[in-house]
Amino acid sequence: MDVTTLIGILVAGGLVVSSILLGGSGTWFVNYPSMMIVIGGTMGATLLAYPLREVMGVFGVAKNVFMHRSQSPSGLIPIMSRLAKKARQEGILSFESQIQRIHDRFLVKGIQMAIDGMEVDEIENVLSTELIYLEERHSLGSEVFTTMGTFAPAIGMLGTIIGLVQMLMQMTDPGKIGEPMAVALLTTFYGTLLANLFFLPVAGKLKTRSKQEILHKQMVIEGVTAIQAGDNHRIVEQKLKAYLAPRIHSNR
Amino acid sequence: MDVTTLIGILVAGGLVVSSILLGGSGTWFVNYPSMMIVIGGTMGATLLAYPLREVMGVFGVAKNVFMHRSQSPSGLIPIMSRLAKKARQEGILSFESQIQRIHDRFLVKGIQMAIDGMEVDEIENVLSTELIYLEERHSLGSEVFTTMGTFAPAIGMLGTIIGLVQMLMQMTDPGKIGEPMAVALLTTFYGTLLANLFFLPVAGKLKTRSKQEILHKQMVIEGVTAIQAGDNHRIVEQKLKAYLAPRIHSNR
Amino acid sequence: MDVTTLIGILVAGGLVVSSILLGGSGTWFVNYPSMMIVIGGTMGATLLAYPLREVMGVFGVAKNVFMHRSQSPSGLIPIMSRLAKKARQEGILSFESQIQRIHDRFLVKGIQMAIDGMEVDEIENVLSTELIYLEERHSLGSEVFTTMGTFAPAIGMLGTIIGLVQMLMQMTDPGKIGEPMAVALLTTFYGTLLANLFFLPVAGKLKTRSKQEILHKQMVIEGVTAIQAGDNHRIVEQKLKAYLAPRIHSNR
Amino acid sequence: MDVTTLIGILVAGGLVVSSILLGGSGTWFVNYPSMMIVIGGTMGATLLAYPLREVMGVFGVAKNVFMHRSQSPSGLIPIMSRLAKKARQEGILSFESQIQRIHDRFLVKGIQMAIDGMEVDEIENVLSTELIYLEERHSLGSEVFTTMGTFAPAIGMLGTIIGLVQMLMQMTDPGKIGEPMAVALLTTFYGTLLANLFFLPVAGKLKTRSKQEILHKQMVIEGVTAIQAGDNHRIVEQKLKAYLAPRIHSNR
Amino acid sequence: MDVTTLIGILVAGGLVVSSILLGGSGTWFVNYPSMMIVIGGTMGATLLAYPLREVMGVFGVAKNVFMHRSQSPSGLIPIMSRLAKKARQEGILSFESQIQRIHDRFLVKGIQMAIDGMEVDEIENVLSTELIYLEERHSLGSEVFTTMGTFAPAIGMLGTIIGLVQMLMQMTDPGKIGEPMAVALLTTFYGTLLANLFFLPVAGKLKTRSKQEILHKQMVIEGVTAIQAGDNHRIVEQKLKAYLAPRIHSNR
Repeated sequence: MDVTTLIGILVAGGLVVSSILLGGSGTWFVNYPSMMIVIGGTMGATLLAYPLREVMGVFGVAKNVFMHRSQSPSGLIPIMSRLAKKARQEGILSFESQIQRIHDRFLVKGIQMAIDGMEVDEIENVLSTELIYLEERHSLGSEVFTTMGTFAPAIGMLGTIIGLVQMLMQMTDPGKIGEPMAVALLTTFYGTLLANLFFLPVAGKLKTRSKQEILHKQMVIEGVTAIQAGDNHRIVEQKLKAYLAPRIHSNR
Repeated sequence: MDVTTLIGILVAGGLVVSSILLGGSGTWFVNYPSMMIVIGGTMGATLLAYPLREVMGVFGVAKNVFMHRSQSPSGLIPIMSRLAKKARQEGILSFESQIQRIHDRFLVKGIQMAIDGMEVDEIENVLSTELIYLEERHSLGSEVFTTMGTFAPAIGMLGTIIGLVQMLMQMTDPGKIGEPMAVALLTTFYGTLLANLFFLPVAGKLKTRSKQEILHKQMVIEGVTAIQAGDNHRIVEQKLKAYLAPRIHSNR
Repeated sequence: MDVTTLIGILVAGGLVVSSILLGGSGTWFVNYPSMMIVIGGTMGATLLAYPLREVMGVFGVAKNVFMHRSQSPSGLIPIMSRLAKKARQEGILSFESQIQRIHDRFLVKGIQMAIDGMEVDEIENVLSTELIYLEERHSLGSEVFTTMGTFAPAIGMLGTIIGLVQMLMQMTDPGKIGEPMAVALLTTFYGTLLANLFFLPVAGKLKTRSKQEILHKQMVIEGVTAIQAGDNHRIVEQKLKAYLAPRIHSNR
Repeated sequence: MDVTTLIGILVAGGLVVSSILLGGSGTWFVNYPSMMIVIGGTMGATLLAYPLREVMGVFGVAKNVFMHRSQSPSGLIPIMSRLAKKARQEGILSFESQIQRIHDRFLVKGIQMAIDGMEVDEIENVLSTELIYLEERHSLGSEVFTTMGTFAPAIGMLGTIIGLVQMLMQMTDPGKIGEPMAVALLTTFYGTLLANLFFLPVAGKLKTRSKQEILHKQMVIEGVTAIQAGDNHRIVEQKLKAYLAPRIHSNR
Repeated sequence: MDVTTLIGILVAGGLVVSSILLGGSGTWFVNYPSMMIVIGGTMGATLLAYPLREVMGVFGVAKNVFMHRSQSPSGLIPIMSRLAKKARQEGILSFESQIQRIHDRFLVKGIQMAIDGMEVDEIENVLSTELIYLEERHSLGSEVFTTMGTFAPAIGMLGTIIGLVQMLMQMTDPGKIGEPMAVALLTTFYGTLLANLFFLPVAGKLKTRSKQEILHKQMVIEGVTAIQAGDNHRIVEQKLKAYLAPRIHSNR
């Protein structure tokens, strides 16, 4: 698991738990029917809104995103530069023997098309199409979590209204509404908690990760088309550096 | 009915119903005037906002979407590949005899235009126009449901205000406000329930389905124009695969 | 008045009125100062936000939209097809004599420019500019109503706060707050009612109508440029059909 | 001051004031500390968000917008038509003597570039760049007011929470919470009032005015480039009319 | 620190503090567990949503933005004009000796590419790519603060619900709920305060600064490409002035 996620979970979760324990019994906040209506209702609404396969896939994606680190886009520049040099010295066909040593599937696909002799425009076209639809699938992932983050508090409020109606219907002594009102509030508590400390942050993380991966792939496209067009390795480097922050010279 | 929808309805509906029954009498939550004001008010506002024909059509669309499965876009690749091979071996006119065996109306239209000798650009133009306006009609569908999902809680709140005003106007003993207040809350309950467990999920489903259908049609356009331009069947395959997730090689 | 609008008004209005009458006296919901602050405040805010001429014009537009039916875009196809045939048989100049029989001002303008010998690109340019600015004026209309639908509940809440402050300032016996609190809620009631059963639905209707009119005009542009470019009448038909839903063959 | 603004202020302000005076003492609604926290907090948040010079400039812009009338775009058509005629008869250089009689700075700049012999593309380029950045500066103006309209109710709510905490902390007799609660509500009242009857309407007005000015300038660009390209004065007229509503022939 | 920020902090902070002190004891508003849950929960949610490095980087950016003044874009015009003159008189290679006297890293990069003999299109391409990705990184910064401004009030509300549940669970005498309710409200107070007087204004400031820096860099691109294309220095000036407000001649 990457460190930030761990820190985030520990900080946020720890504070909520300790604030609950400091103020009284922790069992006040455990109510299984309330949990079920919020989690179940949110999942139900999500399954109505998205195909089952997408919802399941999204959880796999979420797990990967939290477990693995993304590739560093700056590591790509020396690789592309070396390929550009080799291409001008020995021709693109010389990549044939090296191609299994490259682990980046997207880069391999681009180089393979170059070896196959496809034109620069067509290579760019195919890779860009793949990138566009990758972006669409990624955005589906963060969209599913955003949707859950929108449904959860609404379902929580629904549960609270159910609890309030039940409380009001049997209310005889206004002085004794304390406990049923507290229980009614629990669904809103669960819904707000899930939305703000799980669904919405995960949606945000998926969006950030997606941007990183797309930046990486856009640099691959720029590099492969530059190499295929016969650009000098220094121009390839300059073109790729434009994608990255000039950390040293600038104040940003 | 597709399985996800069934699961979604069972999970969400079952939990709401059981949470209602666990906490007291189920009849507390049945109030016909309250139901009528929420459902009727939402329908009324929707009929003011959209033409009757659109609203009716949207319900038909919604039914279809929940009943039928969408086509698999990956099934399109071998079909297009076979057509590309045949086109290069026997010419595009040879499709004439096969065309009634293809069930995809959009593909048939594209092939027919190719047989009729229209140019690549014009075929792409006509098919893209059809796709753009299909997308617009689809988005109208999910827009109508989103609109209903926005009106329902607002109308519910309106009903609650009406109930509160009536309660306050005849309030003599603050200790007896329990029941009229519970009844006043019911319209908010219905509005929130309808919005979050029906209108908004359906709007989401329509959007997802629309994206799938558009992806499918975009692949048809790419394939037909590639075939008409005389592309080799392996290039056609590569172009179409770019639209789909590389499930095996990549970690996404 | 078109039927949908009538149904919408009857359903929504009727339900609100009957829910008011069922629960007590209807006069509880009539409070002229409250009405004036909501309607007047909303109009005042709108007049600050938009020029008087626009606000007045918008009401005229709204009246028209509810009174008149829009043109059917499918009715345009045979007209354009006939014109295309005639253009190829007798030349575009032969339209001169027919032009006063066409009622569609936009089509007449397009044909007139064709007769005047303007090039295809220039005709498309002028008509598209007109379309873009028509769209902008239309969107102004629905924007004004959306703005009113946003101001109305806010002004209603403002009125409720004024009422609450006045009630709290003179509160002596907490048991007697019923009536002034009910009156304070009335402005929120009016604001919510106006927004959700009038302003926002009308804004939605204007948007829908605008899309229909723009679709119609886009088909005119496509048709006129195709005719001027000398397209065969069957190609003109095919191009125009792409704008419309294939209701018979497809399941959407 | 233009009449609409005056009407808007009178209607909205008058109604709020009379609704305050009808229900009790006007002094209930005057609380200087509450006013200061809302106005000061909103200004403080705005000064954190925008540079001082921009905030000050925005107030100047707002004053101008309410004081001056915008130019009529339809008045531009005869001017451009006359220039087009003159350009074809006497050449563009003949404008040199007339240029100081034109008051529209943007038009003068366009004509000057034409006299200087810049090419059509370059003139369009320079004028469009100016238009894009003018639009950006305008949108900054309405953005500042929208921001203030978002901060004001939030700061108002903050003040109300402060008041509630203070009231609850010293609450001994629940029957005496009337006055402090009313005072606590006043910040929400001021925040809502400022947002809905001042900041947001002004933001809307700035947006409307900006659109008008941009439309005007876009017509200048179209006209100047058409003249420089040697278009006939009737074509210039037709091109410019496309920007305006056909009030007479159409029902919009 | 720039003056506006200082004024903003003093005005907003001073008013909040004095409104707290005027109404009672300042210690009522100091509650360390409440502060921790709001600040910690917001940071936790943010760390779940963004990589640690980004969140840390964003704080550095925020510090810089408040400390340093941005460059004046109008100061760029005489510099570019002088370079344009020199380029036409002595050739672009004559810049070689001057390049270390220019402090603007982006301008140096552009000139260096011109000296290296890259074509106008390629220079524009590389610089625009750098600008696009700079914009993306900037928008990440303001996005992180906007996210925190959205999470803070939600976490505050979560804390208030926790407090309410705890109060209701041990409520025996409804007359004594004052203090625990006040404490429960404090998390909402902190959340609203942080969002509206820190996170959201900073997000706004980052957006404004980013726009200024991008305007500046866009002018550099325009200038360098114009110089490389051999434009006369007066045309370079005119092109660059189009980016700036015509403060003197126009009323905006």
